[in-house]
Amino acid sequence: MTITLYDLAGADPDRRFSPFCWRTRMAIAHKGLAVEAVPWRFTEKDVIAFSGQGKVPVIVDNGKAVVDSWVIADYLDEKYPQKPLLATSGERALAHFVSAWCDAAIHPAVARIVIADIPRHLADKDKDYFRKSREERFGMKLEDVSAGREEKIAAFRQTIQPLRATVEAQPYLGGASPNYADYVVFGAFQWARCISPAKLLAADDPVAAWRRRMLAAFDGLAGKAPADDV
Amino acid sequence: MTITLYDLAGADPDRRFSPFCWRTRMAIAHKGLAVEAVPWRFTEKDVIAFSGQGKVPVIVDNGKAVVDSWVIADYLDEKYPQKPLLATSGERALAHFVSAWCDAAIHPAVARIVIADIPRHLADKDKDYFRKSREERFGMKLEDVSAGREEKIAAFRQTIQPLRATVEAQPYLGGASPNYADYVVFGAFQWARCISPAKLLAADDPVAAWRRRMLAAFDGLAGKAPADDV
Repeated sequence: MTITLYDLAGADPDRRFSPFCWRTRMAIAHKGLAVEAVPWRFTEKDVIAFSGQGKVPVIVDNGKAVVDSWVIADYLDEKYPQKPLLATSGERALAHFVSAWCDAAIHPAVARIVIADIPRHLADKDKDYFRKSREERFGMKLEDVSAGREEKIAAFRQTIQPLRATVEAQPYLGGASPNYADYVVFGAFQWARCISPAKLLAADDPVAAWRRRMLAAFDGLAGKAPADDV
Repeated sequence: MTITLYDLAGADPDRRFSPFCWRTRMAIAHKGLAVEAVPWRFTEKDVIAFSGQGKVPVIVDNGKAVVDSWVIADYLDEKYPQKPLLATSGERALAHFVSAWCDAAIHPAVARIVIADIPRHLADKDKDYFRKSREERFGMKLEDVSAGREEKIAAFRQTIQPLRATVEAQPYLGGASPNYADYVVFGAFQWARCISPAKLLAADDPVAAWRRRMLAAFDGLAGKAPADDV
């Protein structure tokens, strides 16, 4: 049975750029499950109203709706324990820390770098909604949020030092092979890559080598996605 | 057979304040192994020369010397797999990230807060060595490193947000019970607590609750240690 994923998209329906939806895309691929990733726009709240809230990712699996990328990952491992686990319970506990680090340090930093690039990729109906809601959140124009991008990228490269030290010592956060912690962090990089030409990573950064491994995973699922930083 | 641990101490031999030795103390307790934690001072390089290097922790187990807290943890799980594991291989991979976060974000921040408090606890023979080597490393007087402590503590409390979010959601980094990732991070807090009156944590911080759980573990092993932040 194919899982339906409501997946944030731009004007180009193949432009997928939600970090949280990428976590779920990679997680479903890890489980080896079939998925139809339906393009969804910010303002299509009615389309996912059945889920009881207004954000993606939302999956529907055998008629059951599940929301929130973390909850979806738990659901997939619980529902399909015979498929490769995204994380054992001990790994999940530590992945929680990785996710909290992402929330506190990575997503805010990436947002400040890429946010002004997002509107030009959006469907017309999403443009006003996005600008208005995000400018309210930041208390300034998107272009002002992203001002001084080069300094912000330099600071970002410092911030990811724990990731760098880890993937210098082992191929993935998960060790010899990726697990859900890798997909959590990768979502942030894929968000940036799919929406912005900003070069978050120097080519010789060990994190760039890890990102290349992630882009190549599952027959290049993420690597083939339309992107600006190619 | 009792493991010997060479453990950094101050003028008071019971004042133990190395973050890396605390990782090892907690790890040995987690394994339920007997230990004699021998006080060692910075300048007693000759005492551990048999280990081929000059830093602690060093353990000697059945005549075998093992150095470096991370390597010691691996050694203990490999040598005593029938005792509670410090980490499964998947957990160890993610603990690597936690350790890298500690190295990049936590230890430098704690050092800048507590370093000027260290000399007054040191054995006389260590005082010059410590001040000279650390002032060379920082390129300034220890008292200047620690200037503006209140702002540094405020910044530190921001930096530990990923830890806070995790231990708000679950009792330990390891989940329902502590694992090696907890000991890695706890080492930094115990270092500060044993050497400095600085209040790294507000009493109502969820991280303080986690620290209290760690202080109480193993019959209060860490909680009973002589400390300045009590």
